[in-house]
Amino acid sequence: MATVHAYAAKAAGKALEAFTYEPGALGADEVDIAVEYCGICHSDLSVVDNEWGISRYPVVPGHEVIGKVTALGSNAKGLKVGQRVGVGWYSDSCMHCDQCVGGSHHLCAGGQATIVGHHGGFGSHIRAHWTWAIPLPEGLDAASAGPLLCGGMTVFSPLLNFGVTPTSRVGVVGIGGLGHMALMFARAWGCDVTAFSSTAGKTEELMKMGAHRVVNSRNSTEIKAIAGTLDLIVVTVNVSLDWEAYVNALAPRGRLHVVGAVLEPIPVSAFSLIVGEKHVSGSPTGSPANLRAMLKFAARHGISPVTELYPMSKVNDALQHLREGKARYRVVLEAGK
Amino acid sequence: MATVHAYAAKAAGKALEAFTYEPGALGADEVDIAVEYCGICHSDLSVVDNEWGISRYPVVPGHEVIGKVTALGSNAKGLKVGQRVGVGWYSDSCMHCDQCVGGSHHLCAGGQATIVGHHGGFGSHIRAHWTWAIPLPEGLDAASAGPLLCGGMTVFSPLLNFGVTPTSRVGVVGIGGLGHMALMFARAWGCDVTAFSSTAGKTEELMKMGAHRVVNSRNSTEIKAIAGTLDLIVVTVNVSLDWEAYVNALAPRGRLHVVGAVLEPIPVSAFSLIVGEKHVSGSPTGSPANLRAMLKFAARHGISPVTELYPMSKVNDALQHLREGKARYRVVLEAGK
Repeated sequence: MATVHAYAAKAAGKALEAFTYEPGALGADEVDIAVEYCGICHSDLSVVDNEWGISRYPVVPGHEVIGKVTALGSNAKGLKVGQRVGVGWYSDSCMHCDQCVGGSHHLCAGGQATIVGHHGGFGSHIRAHWTWAIPLPEGLDAASAGPLLCGGMTVFSPLLNFGVTPTSRVGVVGIGGLGHMALMFARAWGCDVTAFSSTAGKTEELMKMGAHRVVNSRNSTEIKAIAGTLDLIVVTVNVSLDWEAYVNALAPRGRLHVVGAVLEPIPVSAFSLIVGEKHVSGSPTGSPANLRAMLKFAARHGISPVTELYPMSKVNDALQHLREGKARYRVVLEAGK
Repeated sequence: MATVHAYAAKAAGKALEAFTYEPGALGADEVDIAVEYCGICHSDLSVVDNEWGISRYPVVPGHEVIGKVTALGSNAKGLKVGQRVGVGWYSDSCMHCDQCVGGSHHLCAGGQATIVGHHGGFGSHIRAHWTWAIPLPEGLDAASAGPLLCGGMTVFSPLLNFGVTPTSRVGVVGIGGLGHMALMFARAWGCDVTAFSSTAGKTEELMKMGAHRVVNSRNSTEIKAIAGTLDLIVVTVNVSLDWEAYVNALAPRGRLHVVGAVLEPIPVSAFSLIVGEKHVSGSPTGSPANLRAMLKFAARHGISPVTELYPMSKVNDALQHLREGKARYRVVLEAGK
C-alpha cells in the first residue's frame, strides 16, 4: 500500500489536518482496505480530545469504516481483493488469549483499538487483521452501513448476548447515534420497545424508528408510571440519570445495561437488585462473530442507520456538527470527496 | 391445629417471650407442620428489630424450619401427613401472577414472608401453602438442614440461575452463616473456590469447607493481586467494601452478585462494566422448584451446614450469640426443648 492520505489531530482537541503516512509492509494476517465511507462516533471525539487519557497523536479517527479490500497478506483468510468489508472499534487482537480463542476477541486485553496507536478510517486506506475486516452482506447500503460497525454493534450486543427474546420489553435511553439504531434493532428483534428521550416533539419520528411509546427520560414521574414493566433498559447516554427510577422501571429479573461511558459512578441499591433479582451490566462493541451476525440481521431486516453524508474534506465541519449535538442521527464521511 | 406455643417479640428490639396463638381453620391449600428444628437467620434479627421498617408485631421469627406435616388442606398436593418438609423465607404467594405461574414464586409481588404478618417457626407449629412446604429428601440430617431453606438457598441461587458451570472460578465474600454454605455448594458444583474473609486464622477451616484459597476481604492489596481471575463473586456481607477492587477481581464477563442487604448504595463504574462486559446483580431466596433442586443437590453431595444447637426455650441466648457475631456458623433451635 502506497502513501495514505488521511486527516489527523496533532494534539488534544485540535482541528484535523491533512496528514500522510507510509503504512509499511503488509503483515501476513493483514488486509488493506480502500475506504469508501466512514461514520463518526462520539468516541472519535473522545479520542481526539484525549478525554480518556489513552490517545496517541497524531490521531487519525474513524472506526466505522466501509471499504473494499485492496490487498491480502499471505495468511489472510476468507476474503478476496475487491470484497466490501467493514471495520469497527478494533482492527486487531492477540488471537491467542482465552477470549480470542473463545471467539470473544472484543474482550482481549491486548486488543488494538482502530484509532488508538493505529490509524483509523478518516483517510484513503486502512489496515486491519483479516479477522476484524467483516464481510458486508448483500443488500446493505454501503453509504449508510458504517455506523453499524461500532454504534450498531454496541446496541445489538445487549439483545444478542444478554438473554433478550422477542417477548422481552426493551427500553432505550437516549435516542441519538446509538439509540436510534437500538430502536430499530429491538423492534426487528420482535420486542415491545420504549424510547426514553429528553427531546420534545420527536415522538412520531421515534415511533417510525420502532418505538411503541416514548417516555421523557428526564421526567421521574413519567418513569415511575412504568415501574416494573421493562426487561431490559439500554442506556446510550453518558450523563447521570435518576438511576433509582430506571432500576424501578425494571420487571423482576430485569437488566439495566449501560453502553454509554457514564463518568460518575452509578449508585446501585443492593436491596433493589436482591428483591427483584435484577442486573446492572455493560458491554463494549462485539466480537467478529457478533459483528457478522449483526450485519446479516440488519441486511435481512432492512435496518439502515439514519445518516447525514459529508465529504471527507469537510471532516472538521462534520465533527463540529456532532459536537453541537446536531447529528440526526449519525454523520458519515465519504472518502475521496 | 390447636393452640400454637411460640416465642414472639412484642415490639422492635425486645427479647422474645412465650406467646400462644390460635391458628384458626386450615385453608384448602394449606398444611400444618409440627416444628422439629428451626435455624436462625440474620434477617430474623432484622425483623425483630424492625430494621427494614416492615415488621408487624408480635413477631414470631423463624424461617429455616424443618418439621413434619400434621394436617393437609383439602387442596394440598404432593404431601402426606407425617412427611418431613422444610419452610423458608416464604410461606405463601399469590399463585396467579406471571412470576408464580412461571415458577418464580419467590419474585411474586404478593409473596407472604414467613415472619412478616405471619407467624414463623419459633414455636410448636407453622402453617404454609403446600407449594412452599418443600419435601426433605432422604439422607439430609433434620437437625442441621434448616439453614439450607433460607441461607443455603440464597447462596445456591447464584450458582443455579446465573450461568455458573464447573469451570467457573467463584469467590465468596464473608464466611458466616451464608458464606460457609456457599463454599460447600461452590466446591460441590465443581468450581475453583476463593474465600474472602476478614477473620485471621480460619484458613484451614475454610479450606476444609471447600475453599482452594483464602484472601483477606479487607486487604485491597491482596484483592488487587487476583485481578481479572473470578467469574462470580457472591457477596454475603451487608457492609460496604472496596467495591472497585472486587469488580476488578472479576474476569471478563464476570459477575459481582450481592445477597447481603448492603444498606449504602454500591457505586459502580460504567466504564468497568462496559470494558469487561461485567455484571452487578442480586437475588433473594429461591423458588419452590429451586428449593427442591437445592435440597436434592445437598443430599447427593452430603452438604450439611455447620450448626450450633440450642433448645428453643433458650431462644434469647441463641439470638444474643448471633448478635455478638459468635455463631459458628449457623444457630439452630430444637423445638419442644
